[in-house]
Amino acid sequence: MSQDRTGRTHKRLPGTARALLALRGVDFDPLVRLVFRLQKPYVPDLTLEMCRESVDHVVEKREVQYAILTGVTLDVMAEEGRLDEPLATILREERELYGVDRVLALSIVNVYGSIGLSNFGYLDEERPAELLQALPGDGPRVHTFVDDILAAIVAAACARIAHRAADARQAAAPPEGAR
Amino acid sequence: MSQDRTGRTHKRLPGTARALLALRGVDFDPLVRLVFRLQKPYVPDLTLEMCRESVDHVVEKREVQYAILTGVTLDVMAEEGRLDEPLATILREERELYGVDRVLALSIVNVYGSIGLSNFGYLDEERPAELLQALPGDGPRVHTFVDDILAAIVAAACARIAHRAADARQAAAPPEGAR
Amino acid sequence: MSQDRTGRTHKRLPGTARALLALRGVDFDPLVRLVFRLQKPYVPDLTLEMCRESVDHVVEKREVQYAILTGVTLDVMAEEGRLDEPLATILREERELYGVDRVLALSIVNVYGSIGLSNFGYLDEERPAELLQALPGDGPRVHTFVDDILAAIVAAACARIAHRAADARQAAAPPEGAR
Amino acid sequence: MSQDRTGRTHKRLPGTARALLALRGVDFDPLVRLVFRLQKPYVPDLTLEMCRESVDHVVEKREVQYAILTGVTLDVMAEEGRLDEPLATILREERELYGVDRVLALSIVNVYGSIGLSNFGYLDEERPAELLQALPGDGPRVHTFVDDILAAIVAAACARIAHRAADARQAAAPPEGAR
Repeated sequence: MSQDRTGRTHKRLPGTARALLALRGVDFDPLVRLVFRLQKPYVPDLTLEMCRESVDHVVEKREVQYAILTGVTLDVMAEEGRLDEPLATILREERELYGVDRVLALSIVNVYGSIGLSNFGYLDEERPAELLQALPGDGPRVHTFVDDILAAIVAAACARIAHRAADARQAAAPPEGAR
Repeated sequence: MSQDRTGRTHKRLPGTARALLALRGVDFDPLVRLVFRLQKPYVPDLTLEMCRESVDHVVEKREVQYAILTGVTLDVMAEEGRLDEPLATILREERELYGVDRVLALSIVNVYGSIGLSNFGYLDEERPAELLQALPGDGPRVHTFVDDILAAIVAAACARIAHRAADARQAAAPPEGAR
Repeated sequence: MSQDRTGRTHKRLPGTARALLALRGVDFDPLVRLVFRLQKPYVPDLTLEMCRESVDHVVEKREVQYAILTGVTLDVMAEEGRLDEPLATILREERELYGVDRVLALSIVNVYGSIGLSNFGYLDEERPAELLQALPGDGPRVHTFVDDILAAIVAAACARIAHRAADARQAAAPPEGAR
Repeated sequence: MSQDRTGRTHKRLPGTARALLALRGVDFDPLVRLVFRLQKPYVPDLTLEMCRESVDHVVEKREVQYAILTGVTLDVMAEEGRLDEPLATILREERELYGVDRVLALSIVNVYGSIGLSNFGYLDEERPAELLQALPGDGPRVHTFVDDILAAIVAAACARIAHRAADARQAAAPPEGAR
């Protein structure tokens, strides 16, 4: 179960999600710097390159690609006046109680377990400068979904780094039973 | 925090979600019968009227309304050829690994706690006859989101009945400390 | 389905969860003040009494009671040296990647939909003074679960206030169709 | 953020979770057969060995190890009369509305995205023979957590196989843009 029961061929999503984000003008560099700033205190040997690799890894996950594709499509169509009402108005007004944007983002955060959760909530609440820099600011844009999606990507990339750092510490430590 | 920071007035969603489902041809009677069939073995004095009331209660929750509004709008626009590619094709082909439909449905299920979860998975997997009867079958339709949404509404309504039955038993029982 | 299939009587949990928190020395007053501080900017007519009522409402939900009961029991038994190893050591060291505490807290946060999520993450990350004041600080204590549980209770209470404020605005606004 | 801020060394969990399950008498063979039975219709070239490898992969994930460790410790201590009341009684009676067991299992299911969700709900509801065979049946045992954990491990293993089969199909298919 849990597959395509029709046997239809799954076509590639060959970087579609990343291409969509690029089309929206999303700049990944500030996101990579944000991951670095957040994780450096806990992973002393962290490099920008490791952060970039983690962000890339998150964005290439299938469930993340589908979440990005869905959210960005909704943002774009609302912005261009092609989304049906009343959903279009709700997205344009970024109603805080809408919640579907956050639910979608949560499916990205969960990709590396619950530890991305606090980071996501913090980023969603504090909106650090890097998140703003990642998005183009010109003109009346609708970023209801992409706002939360970028925070979720950063949170998941941080979680991945945390897990890998713990893996490295475990590999270097004697097994628990040997204490 | 966590509110509309702009102070913009929140307009009503006066039955918008229910109206959208009605426009899609969704018949609530089979859903009510399904809730009854699933819960009757555990709640002997259950009536169809109580099941109808629980389904109504679920559908009127704000987060459920927003989930319905988003999912049904995506289904309709994909069906009518007005949704951007490649999302439209993904919805039309109902790709099992898409997952966003399930994530959205989960936000409905969670409204009454984790106990709706097993019901939802079971309904999503088994697709009992009542779920099919609730949807119009004529013509090439896109029901990717509404399929999961109806299963989620039934699961949440079952969970609400289970909680209320437990409340009634608790009210009738001596307190735990008195044993 | 989704009920007690055995027909066993559900005994009351008559304030057991609240009693357990009281036994742990948890002071609800700082939590109520924290809810007030966080929500006042968005709900101008908010009173401390409304915040206290929301916190009480959250704590009395069945799934919240069970989460509190489970988490506090684990904390207490780890603290008193009665929990099996290696779980006891993991709780005493409050390992960040443990995550089960956060998963449990999430089930509390979700009680009022996804909007509590950002608040929870923010509180979990920032640990404002009120959260510390709510817990007794004397001696070597294990607060791995209760830390996250208190943040979750505050986040859920904030979400409930946000939803009720939106309800009030909706009741006062003309219906969307009338625009 | 999101790491062990204290710099304490993370000791290994060297197969602790698997060892705990073995101590409980859990037999992985029926679980592997269940994964095979569920996925074979959708992945024609599936082998038992691939199913065993997927189950092993799930069990070795850090968040899964912590979930197993927590749930099994609670089951064992409740069974042996060493868990504090009233939690011990709640676990022994397997109260359906308890829900914490399901919340913990969900954190396992989510490891491979939302597609494991339906499988988990189905397994939790239907309890196929293989799940019963995986657990020892002798004497009065408490399996409140382990019941859901095993269903979650199977669901996550199925999800992993589904994702990998889709990856293989994608690698063999021409890119979407080339149609």
